[in-house]
Amino acid sequence: MGKRLDIINSGGSYPVEIEHGLRFRTEEKIRQVCPDATSVFLIADENAASHYLNDVLSSFQQPPHVIFLQPGEGSKSIEELQRVLTELLEHGADRKSVVAALGGGVTGDLAGFAAAVLLRGVSFVQIPTTLLAHDSSVGGKTGINHPSGKNLIGAFYAPAAVLYDPAMLQTLPEGEWRSGFAEVIKHSLISRSGFLEWLSDNVNNPRDLQDEALEELLYRSIQVKASIVEEDEFEAGVRAYLNFGHTLGHAIEAEAGYGTWTHGEAVALGMLAAMHLSRFKLQADLPLENVKELLENHGFQTALPHSFDHQKLLERMKRDKKTEAGNLRFVLLRELGMPELIPVETELVKEALKEVTSDD
Amino acid sequence: MGKRLDIINSGGSYPVEIEHGLRFRTEEKIRQVCPDATSVFLIADENAASHYLNDVLSSFQQPPHVIFLQPGEGSKSIEELQRVLTELLEHGADRKSVVAALGGGVTGDLAGFAAAVLLRGVSFVQIPTTLLAHDSSVGGKTGINHPSGKNLIGAFYAPAAVLYDPAMLQTLPEGEWRSGFAEVIKHSLISRSGFLEWLSDNVNNPRDLQDEALEELLYRSIQVKASIVEEDEFEAGVRAYLNFGHTLGHAIEAEAGYGTWTHGEAVALGMLAAMHLSRFKLQADLPLENVKELLENHGFQTALPHSFDHQKLLERMKRDKKTEAGNLRFVLLRELGMPELIPVETELVKEALKEVTSDD
Repeated sequence: MGKRLDIINSGGSYPVEIEHGLRFRTEEKIRQVCPDATSVFLIADENAASHYLNDVLSSFQQPPHVIFLQPGEGSKSIEELQRVLTELLEHGADRKSVVAALGGGVTGDLAGFAAAVLLRGVSFVQIPTTLLAHDSSVGGKTGINHPSGKNLIGAFYAPAAVLYDPAMLQTLPEGEWRSGFAEVIKHSLISRSGFLEWLSDNVNNPRDLQDEALEELLYRSIQVKASIVEEDEFEAGVRAYLNFGHTLGHAIEAEAGYGTWTHGEAVALGMLAAMHLSRFKLQADLPLENVKELLENHGFQTALPHSFDHQKLLERMKRDKKTEAGNLRFVLLRELGMPELIPVETELVKEALKEVTSDD
Repeated sequence: MGKRLDIINSGGSYPVEIEHGLRFRTEEKIRQVCPDATSVFLIADENAASHYLNDVLSSFQQPPHVIFLQPGEGSKSIEELQRVLTELLEHGADRKSVVAALGGGVTGDLAGFAAAVLLRGVSFVQIPTTLLAHDSSVGGKTGINHPSGKNLIGAFYAPAAVLYDPAMLQTLPEGEWRSGFAEVIKHSLISRSGFLEWLSDNVNNPRDLQDEALEELLYRSIQVKASIVEEDEFEAGVRAYLNFGHTLGHAIEAEAGYGTWTHGEAVALGMLAAMHLSRFKLQADLPLENVKELLENHGFQTALPHSFDHQKLLERMKRDKKTEAGNLRFVLLRELGMPELIPVETELVKEALKEVTSDD
């Protein structure tokens, strides 16, 4: 029972363990990767804590000090970073302390960055409680937001371990499940491992997934991410492929106003647009209808509402980090599982926007 | 003319160039190590800028944006970090921007940390303007202070290059020269390269040093530091040897009130105490009188004033990061150039304090 991957990076490797009930063995698992730990600090999202903190704490002989974070992107601020660092220091954190994050992407990003800069780096353990965090907890990206934009301040800082107990996904609200599932579909589209087929065959109603199938889903999706971040730890090349669907996705999120659309809902539409672009630009033969059906089965909206101004979306896309000298670049698929980073003419992007816009 | 070392680290290597007049070639030198740079940002200490900013700027075809820092430890705050990051982002810094630090240790530490966390890391170039910065600019330690203590927040982040123009040391105040020279002497004591002998023979009045001799001094001192940080980039072992003289030194600085004694003046006394301890504990045969003379020739105080309370110094030393389970540990010398990290009984430390206390 349970699955394990080892992610290789410049500093060695770290395990990702996926197993139902793992939260009840948190201390044991932390001690395995950090045998010299002098103390453990738990940085916990309030929502996740309300469901699972007692379970996690019950695994400890001496309860760790817990620092609570409010749910939501607002916690990824420099003020919250400072508060967390102060609390760590005032409660005696030293170089051999371990910072563990119990929560989703926001918690992992902030706690990981705090661990990266505390005393020039202490050990960090991820305990993801959301589906989206299967993506964000692997690959070593940590950071906070700046008034000028998201994730502008941060570090590449690998965890010592990722301890994933899929049982904690049971309390995840529908919208948050979808947000994570969009990245699962993304991983299936940019890999040649047969994962898309497996998803279509096995995951029609994800909330009914048996324990073993859910572990398998997480394992396969993380495997795609792992193979890419292992090849490109510091985002100099192929890691851009993980941006599939995100060029338009980010623009939709920002244009709608953050928090209106979830990240995953916006990325889902971004992936459909990128598949249309792949058709236009590379004559790619892609299972567009299958993917649309898969998305619809999981409650995603697959048509862009008329309320979005295409011109404004275009302008936002031009500020994407992949844009070079004002030219839009997209991750496209030459075929299923074959992503490439390709400059795309504005006219084609307008066409793709029309394709994904609602007919109503 | 000029000297060059290449420091090997986990990410590859970076050059330290030492040459009179190098500041007039700043842009050329930055382009050599960062050929893809989209823009350069200069973070400059106001004092250093008042003397040398025009010279540095004259080397650029397009003047870089300059962010000024007030001199002094107060600039190593999270608020200043935030101000610098905001100014970088608002002036269009991107992943291929270069952050260059013109100043001493404070400027290098803050600018280096800003570079480390901006967009998860942009290139960083050190342009030291003090003697003390020959030490701090090499080895990749960056960081800021926290109300709980100095350098508690930071990162190991190697520069792309260190561009050292010793001509800029001409305007350094006497006290700041001494502060750096204590680290030069420290390097001579923990190395077996004959550097102490060279110093005694060649450097009686450092302000009269000819260009070539000053380059040689910097080269030799950096070489000692480089060999240690190459062996122990992330401070897991031998890097502790660089702490020679600092256990008591830090206690004196803190006890006197920061800014009363310079770091170097305090470390000088710390080194003398550590040499006495090496005598007591390891029966080491050390050139104590030579070192004392060398220090006195350079205007250092070599006796601890009676005003210091030995008990309070001891308590501060117990909070040193080398202390384990309440036991003091010192870097001692088994012989010249042979440092070791050794637990020392409190009674012996008291004896050493008596030895270095003024007879008056």
